[in-house]
This record gives sequence, C-alpha cells and structure tokens, in this order.
Amino acid sequence: STKGGHLKFKSGDAKFQLGGRLMADYAAISDDRNLDGDGSEFRRARLFVKGQIFNDWGFKAQYDFAENDVVAKDLYIAYDGFDSTSIKVGNHFMPSGLEAQTSSKYITFMERSTIQDVFAVGRKNGVSVATHGDNWTLHGGLHMQDVSNDNDGRDEDYGYGVRATFAPITGKTQAVHLGASYSHQEFDDNGTERFRARPEIHTINTRPFDTKIDGVESTDNYGLEAAAVMGPFSLQTEYFAKEVETANGDFDLDGWYAYGSYFLTGESRSYKGSKGVFGRVKPKSVVGKGGIGAWELGVRYSSIDLYDGLATVPGINTAGEEGEVLTIGVNWYATPTIRFMANYVQSTVEHTGTLLADEDIDAFQVRAQIDF
Amino acid sequence: STKGGHLKFKSGDAKFQLGGRLMADYAAISDDRNLDGDGSEFRRARLFVKGQIFNDWGFKAQYDFAENDVVAKDLYIAYDGFDSTSIKVGNHFMPSGLEAQTSSKYITFMERSTIQDVFAVGRKNGVSVATHGDNWTLHGGLHMQDVSNDNDGRDEDYGYGVRATFAPITGKTQAVHLGASYSHQEFDDNGTERFRARPEIHTINTRPFDTKIDGVESTDNYGLEAAAVMGPFSLQTEYFAKEVETANGDFDLDGWYAYGSYFLTGESRSYKGSKGVFGRVKPKSVVGKGGIGAWELGVRYSSIDLYDGLATVPGINTAGEEGEVLTIGVNWYATPTIRFMANYVQSTVEHTGTLLADEDIDAFQVRAQIDF
Amino acid sequence: STKGGHLKFKSGDAKFQLGGRLMADYAAISDDRNLDGDGSEFRRARLFVKGQIFNDWGFKAQYDFAENDVVAKDLYIAYDGFDSTSIKVGNHFMPSGLEAQTSSKYITFMERSTIQDVFAVGRKNGVSVATHGDNWTLHGGLHMQDVSNDNDGRDEDYGYGVRATFAPITGKTQAVHLGASYSHQEFDDNGTERFRARPEIHTINTRPFDTKIDGVESTDNYGLEAAAVMGPFSLQTEYFAKEVETANGDFDLDGWYAYGSYFLTGESRSYKGSKGVFGRVKPKSVVGKGGIGAWELGVRYSSIDLYDGLATVPGINTAGEEGEVLTIGVNWYATPTIRFMANYVQSTVEHTGTLLADEDIDAFQVRAQIDF
Repeated sequence: STKGGHLKFKSGDAKFQLGGRLMADYAAISDDRNLDGDGSEFRRARLFVKGQIFNDWGFKAQYDFAENDVVAKDLYIAYDGFDSTSIKVGNHFMPSGLEAQTSSKYITFMERSTIQDVFAVGRKNGVSVATHGDNWTLHGGLHMQDVSNDNDGRDEDYGYGVRATFAPITGKTQAVHLGASYSHQEFDDNGTERFRARPEIHTINTRPFDTKIDGVESTDNYGLEAAAVMGPFSLQTEYFAKEVETANGDFDLDGWYAYGSYFLTGESRSYKGSKGVFGRVKPKSVVGKGGIGAWELGVRYSSIDLYDGLATVPGINTAGEEGEVLTIGVNWYATPTIRFMANYVQSTVEHTGTLLADEDIDAFQVRAQIDF
Repeated sequence: STKGGHLKFKSGDAKFQLGGRLMADYAAISDDRNLDGDGSEFRRARLFVKGQIFNDWGFKAQYDFAENDVVAKDLYIAYDGFDSTSIKVGNHFMPSGLEAQTSSKYITFMERSTIQDVFAVGRKNGVSVATHGDNWTLHGGLHMQDVSNDNDGRDEDYGYGVRATFAPITGKTQAVHLGASYSHQEFDDNGTERFRARPEIHTINTRPFDTKIDGVESTDNYGLEAAAVMGPFSLQTEYFAKEVETANGDFDLDGWYAYGSYFLTGESRSYKGSKGVFGRVKPKSVVGKGGIGAWELGVRYSSIDLYDGLATVPGINTAGEEGEVLTIGVNWYATPTIRFMANYVQSTVEHTGTLLADEDIDAFQVRAQIDF
Repeated sequence: STKGGHLKFKSGDAKFQLGGRLMADYAAISDDRNLDGDGSEFRRARLFVKGQIFNDWGFKAQYDFAENDVVAKDLYIAYDGFDSTSIKVGNHFMPSGLEAQTSSKYITFMERSTIQDVFAVGRKNGVSVATHGDNWTLHGGLHMQDVSNDNDGRDEDYGYGVRATFAPITGKTQAVHLGASYSHQEFDDNGTERFRARPEIHTINTRPFDTKIDGVESTDNYGLEAAAVMGPFSLQTEYFAKEVETANGDFDLDGWYAYGSYFLTGESRSYKGSKGVFGRVKPKSVVGKGGIGAWELGVRYSSIDLYDGLATVPGINTAGEEGEVLTIGVNWYATPTIRFMANYVQSTVEHTGTLLADEDIDAFQVRAQIDF
C-alpha cells in the first residue's frame, strides 16, 4: 500500500515498511565572533526498513546519509510476545525526556531545545524494555556506547536509565502529560568529558555552550516533563539536572525550556498517551486535494547552565557555560508528510568562566521536510 | 509491478519506485607519464526511492555508494501542482547542457565529454523551476553549494542559471534539438579555483587538463547545443565558453564536442522533446526473449582550451591547459536495462603553460551496466 | 509477498527481493596483553536489492553499513541463460572453501574459523562462471582487486581460482560433502604482504596471528573440505595450504579446522548439494507460533601455522605465527530468520618468530541476529 504517502506491505503473519525522511535546511546566521556564515545543509536524509514477522518479532534498520556520511540510527530486533510490552536489543532510543523521545519528524521547532544536546541520552546500543497502558508508559534500558565506537585496551562505557509517563487526560484535542526520567552513565577511563550544545541552530559547527570537565567518573541525570493540549493551543516544558561525579568533587549542570504553539487552522498537536510522546499532525485540509494545509505558530524559551563555579577549580577547562535561546517559529503542514518550517533564533552565550566576551548568535532558518 | 525490470508501486493517490544502477568498469591504460595502471572500479552504484504523493507532491532520495563512499545525488521535494511545471527544492540537477542533463544511464559513451567536468553545473542544493511544452523546455535555478559542504566563518558560494530547449522536429525516429544555457557562479572567498577535467577515462585519478586561477570572484558560463536523430543515425554537439572574473582581469575558457552514433540493429536514440534530453534506448529484440539486443557504434571528438595566455600572468599556476580527446565506442543493449559498452579513448594533453612535456593518454575500457 | 519474513515481488518475467541482515554482538574479552576490553559492535548491518529480469538476467546490490561505514558486498550482473549455469560480472564471491562460501547468516559459530582470514578469497571484482548438477558444483573465476581500490601508477593485482564439490549422499537429514579448491594471486608491486587473522573474536581490532612477508610475487592456495550430516549431528572440516612465492624463496603457510554440531531439538543442518554449501536451518517449532525454536550445540578446533621458519630470513618481519583456537557454541533459532548465539572462545597465540611472550585470548561473546 502507498496510502498516506507511506510504502507498506502485508501478507500472512508478516508486514514490512520501507521509508525515510528528508530535511533540507537553509540558514542566514549573524554571530558576534563570525564563527559561521550563511549556509545550507541536509539536516537529515534517512532511509529505513522495518518489519513485524512471525507474529511476535520486529526489527528496524534505519540509516542517516545526510552530508555524505553514514550514521546508524535504529538497528534493532524486538520481541513483542508479551502483552503491551516490547523488548528491544540493538541501537535504539534509550529512556530520556519528552522532546528527545519525540521523532524529529514531529518536533515543533527545527531543532530540539539546546539543553537536549547535554541532557538527552539518545540512541545507544543496548537492551531496553518498554511497557504501557492507555495513558501511561514505563521504559527501562541498559546501554553500551554507540555503534561506531572502537574500544582498544579498555572497556566500553555503559549506562542505564528509566522513564515513566502518565496522562491524566488523553483525548484527541485535550491532553495533559506528566513524566519523569533518570539515567546514569559510567565512564571507564575517568577522562575529560565535554558537555556542549548548539544554540538551536544546526548549520553552525561550533557548540558555544561548552564545558569540559576532567576526571569524570559518572553522571546522574534527572528530568521532569509536562505538556498540555487545549484544542489548537499546546504547552510543553522540561527541566533537567545532571550531577557530574569527578575526582575533584561533584558538579551540577541544569537547564529547562518551555514553549507554546497555536494552530491558526484549528488542528491540535497529536499526543499519544500509550507512547508518552507527540506524533504526526494531520492537517484538516491538504495541499494537492484542494486545501491549504495546517498553519502553526510557536515560541520557545530555553535556558542552560553548565557553570556551577567550575572555572575556580584547577585543571578544569571551560567556555560558554551559560545562556539562553529564544525561538519563534512558523510551520506549514502542506500534507500530513510534507512540512515547511521557518525559525528565527536569538541566542545569548555567557562565557562565565573565561575571558571571552559574551556572544550573541542569531539565525533565520528555513526547512523543507518530507517523510515517506 | 516489476514490469520492464523496474520496481513500482501504486495505490490511491500515491506511487513509489525503488531502484538503482550498477556500472562495473575495467580499463587498460597507457600514459606517457605512467600516472595510472590497469584497473577496475564501480563507476556508479546507486540506490533510490522516489514517489508522487497527495497528487501534487513528489520527492526523490538517491545515493551513490560506489567505491565504498556515500555521495548524495538527488535529494529533493517537488511541487507539481501547476500545469507542466515542477518546482524542486533540495539537491538536484541545476540547468546545464544537453549531455550533462542526460542521465548517465543513457549517455552514448562511457564518460561524458571531457568539457563537462569544467563547464557543466551538475547537481547542487537549491531551488529550481522547470516548465515545458511538447517540444520545448525552460528551466531556471538558484543554488548553494553541494550537500557535503561545511562553511565555517564564511558564506556558502551560490549561483544561478537557466536553460532553454526547442525541438523543431520531435518524432520517434526523427528529431532536431536546439538549446542554450547560461549560468553564473559567485565565489565568496575570492580564492584559488581549479578548472580541471579527466580525459574521458574515469578509472584514472589525475585530471590532466588542469588550470588553477587565483582571486576568482565569479564565473559566467555560456552553452549552445544541437542534436539530430535520423532513424538509426544521430548527431550531437555542444559548445561552452566560461568567463572567469578575477582580481587580475578576466579569462576565457572554452570547449566543444561533436559525435555521431549509428544503430546496426535499426533502433533510434530516444529524444524527449518535453524534457530536452535523450532517454532510454529500447532494443527491437531482447536477449532472454529470443533476441540479440541492440548494437550501436559511435565516435566522438572533444576539444578543450583552459589556457587563454594564463601562464603569462603572475601568481597563476597552470598545467595541462589544452587538448583533445577522440573516443570510439560500441554499445550492446542486451535488454532495455542492461548494456555492455566498450570504448577506445585517445587523448592528447598540451601543457602549454608549463615545462611539462605534452602527454598522450590512451585507454581501452569496458563497462557492464544495469539499471533497475 | 512477506512470506517467511522476506520481502519479495514478482510479476510477468521479473522478480525482485529487498532484504538485509543485522547482527548485534556483545563481547567480554580477557587478553594477556590487555589489547582490548569489553565491547559491543554491529558485526553486520546490510541491505540489499536483488532481481531476476527479462528471464535470463539477474543482479544484486548489497551493502554493509555496520559501524557507520559503507562496504560493498555483492554488486553484480548475472547471465543465467545457459542451463544450470550462471555467469557473474562485478563484485561477488570468488571460488573458495566451504565455510567461506556459506553465508554468514548460516555459519555455525559467530565467526568463521580463524584460518579463513588468511586462506579464503572472499568477494572480489571480476568474472566467474558457476555450473552444477544435483549433487556437484564447479565454479571458476578471474578477479581484480576489491571495489575500494585506487591504483595510482601501477596495475591492479589480479588472481584466479576454481572450486569443485561432490556429494555422494545428499538428503534432507543425511549428506556427505567433499570439495577441493585452488586459487592463485598475483601482486603487481612485489611488496610486503601481510597474512593475519583474528582469533575468532571480531570485536577486537588486533589480529594476533600476523606474519608479514617482503617481496611477495604471488601465492598459490590449496583447499580440501569435507562435511557430513547424520540427522541432528553434523561434522565439518577443511584444510588449507598457501605457497607464498617471494624474491627470497617460497614459504608454506597452512591451517585447518574441524567441528561438530548437534541439534537438541532434532533439526538437521541444511546441505545444498547443487550449491556446495550449507543453508538456512528451519526450526521444527517457531517462537511466536507456540514453539520453542531450535537449539544447537557446537564445538570447533582450529589450528593455524604462519611460521615456516620465516624468522630466520633477513628482512622478514613476523609476529604471532602459530596458534590454535577452541570455540564452544550454543545457538537458539527462535524463528527461521532470527537467531541468538553464545560462543566461548579460547585462543592461544605462539609468537614463534619474535621476543613477544605467548599469549592467551579468551572471550565470551553473544549475538542477536535477524535476516529479512
């Protein structure tokens, strides 16, 4: 079937889907240090195959080929033989916060909030178990490093985590979401770790929010999340705190974001209570079938603090530890699978721990996106 | 459907195609400087998915994985909601000449003429609009750099171009094609640009036609094209001139080629008046269905001049600026999608601007090709 | 059709299959020199498309994307118009021994025996012809180097080989297999060649069985193979000898392995007399359809000798020339296409030619595998 712009096959006890996504970005950037110029990039260019076979078994192989590179995304085998429960082994999303778990196809702004670069766990090679009811989810995982790692002469780093979500209200146009997550990461070599983030602009290569910490033994990561859908309005917020355990003592990094969105054309963001994430927005009318698509406005404020007095500790090299980002966005969902986005991003980087002057980075960026 | 060796799916208002191409080359090379030896390579090894969804929207994702590399080819989203008009955004062919726009699956010789390396625009990341009638086409585009570019600290280069074609005659076995193209390229850093070409042999890594010019600000590129199909005979020719604007004045590079082909088995080259390019040759009889396929002979002469007295300008580093290439080819189209090619190539490189002796490079090269 | 967990399409005179395989490995390693630590990797992560078109023509394009790399596996065009005979051109398996020719999807242990790294020919870019009867096969090939090779200034290396197999008994649960192979390899630059092998553990990067030989002109490789299936029992063994012709005289390397396997659940290893290889094990009962899958135990002993007094020849740099590997394995075939494997590997490396102490490398490694 090619219904809805997706290529799916089903016969007997097996089904397959072949698909992918393209995101073409163009950005005009203004930066005090002139780190980067105006540019274009393919933010994502993925292909995948997934299937459900012999009733109880699933798999997915998804690769990103953007910028002429190969990066494994989902590469897993799943056992779905227990009720409402999936056990996955391989490279896949480990438990983490709401924005991190929501597909890049469905996020409200072009980039996830700047804090995700530091606080989200993302995809790792490991094992996880996820179970759910109609309005709650529970997901626990144990992971090694990512698939491109070579580990000569030392053990691979590992970690584990858990996330729980609960939705007191879960309807098509009204929803309330609450969630919490915790993860722990061990670093085998107790070396220097870098905690850094882009300012919600991906076409630049520098990550101005940037803290290096020596002798890191492990980290503990705590997250809280909440969201609400009220017809065309929605709100979403997350707070993260990371405790970094080192030979020189512990340090606390944290960050949060909050955003609101409004559909001029009356749609609602699509909350999935049994998955604890947001899904695909389906416009009430489709361009190509006599309609005008869906139009959405959004504004987000993010705050990140990677400082905690680190500059005063000897042997710790830091830069760009604090700051905030404001993003204003317009989305046009021409069809359920084609979306055009425009974001204006204003970020302020306070280089608290260094002699570097504070820095403003602004960008106007647009995206053409399809998933298939 | 697997009809004609192509994998296509259609249902409702959407259709998809999955496909690709393989070209396996083997070459024996004789070179005065002994730059390269006998070798083999996969010239192209591509996979793609393309689709038409929600009536008016199209997309294509095509990658080349030859030689264990990833290179993005087509990565675009198209809007086809206007009559006979397609608007594309992403990485795709910008307006350029006839041979450049004709798919590598359908070109008459193993390599496009040597001038294309210098004068063709090729695929770029940008936006283009193409419109057409039954026997004419008009295509304009605005482009950034290609998808693998990182642009730290400066703006990405950009350019624009246009191509128009007209076919006074456009039949299945008789056709006359006329066309013209213009493109402009800006170079943001006004640095050294290299204009260089392989001698219609791709298995060698050196590009002996090679001119470097300092302080290049922009280039203007003019192309003229003509072709004729007279039953089994066909003729094709193109001329290009490039004006290179630099801090040290302007320089003119140019080149042309002309070729003829003849089908021993009576087929005609397939001209598409509404696309302004040549398409797939379908043999009258197919190997595997009791036939012998189609047999074609061709001969091409190419001339390239990258000199323009450049050697006399200080600070300009040049080599291999002039030359010519003669190619004799035999093609065997076993089926519409499987082709075997043999080319004998004789190229002469005049190192006008350097002390290097003139150079002859000859090759006998063969290809096994399939597209699916 | 999605039957059996495979995605196949057929209509008219053409058929296509899209598929791939994933193998996720986790290993705990103990090594005297502490060369490597515990780790994870994707051993294989492949996608392919293959087809049969216009009756007599076939093709396959298969890539491995494991560890974020692109490696071409099968990239060939085949002509199958002669009875029981296939002519292939492109990158594909050249004639070699039984274990090398058996797909990694179907091998009994996680890794092929250590000798294969040195003695098997594997996939090369070239031409081969394979013919067969019900219980015999004959396969000859002529090859260049692999597809990623660049050969500036010298000719590509080439080689050729042949393999013959005969099965006096070939039934579903009873089979006897005999085979022999020979291959020759020319080295154009007569430089230093490295003959080295991993100890049946792939997550480590070092190849402790490692002999370098200078001035290698060519090698001749001889192989003998035998296997027997007796209901749930099976035995398999191979012996290889390689003669290395150098400017300093000839050297002889050799190795062998033998293994037995037993299915606790009563299945038999699946021998294909017309292909001269082992194929897919189908469990009598499938997990997901009320069954427990198939359970198999296996033990293998491998011995490799890359020494031949090489240390006494000036200008020859050697290390880790002799040794043996013992592997004990358990396989659980949950479905015909999903398999979980656990191997305990104990290897002993005798650094005969160097001052390096002898070395023990042990590993406990597990794999989750699917093919689709």
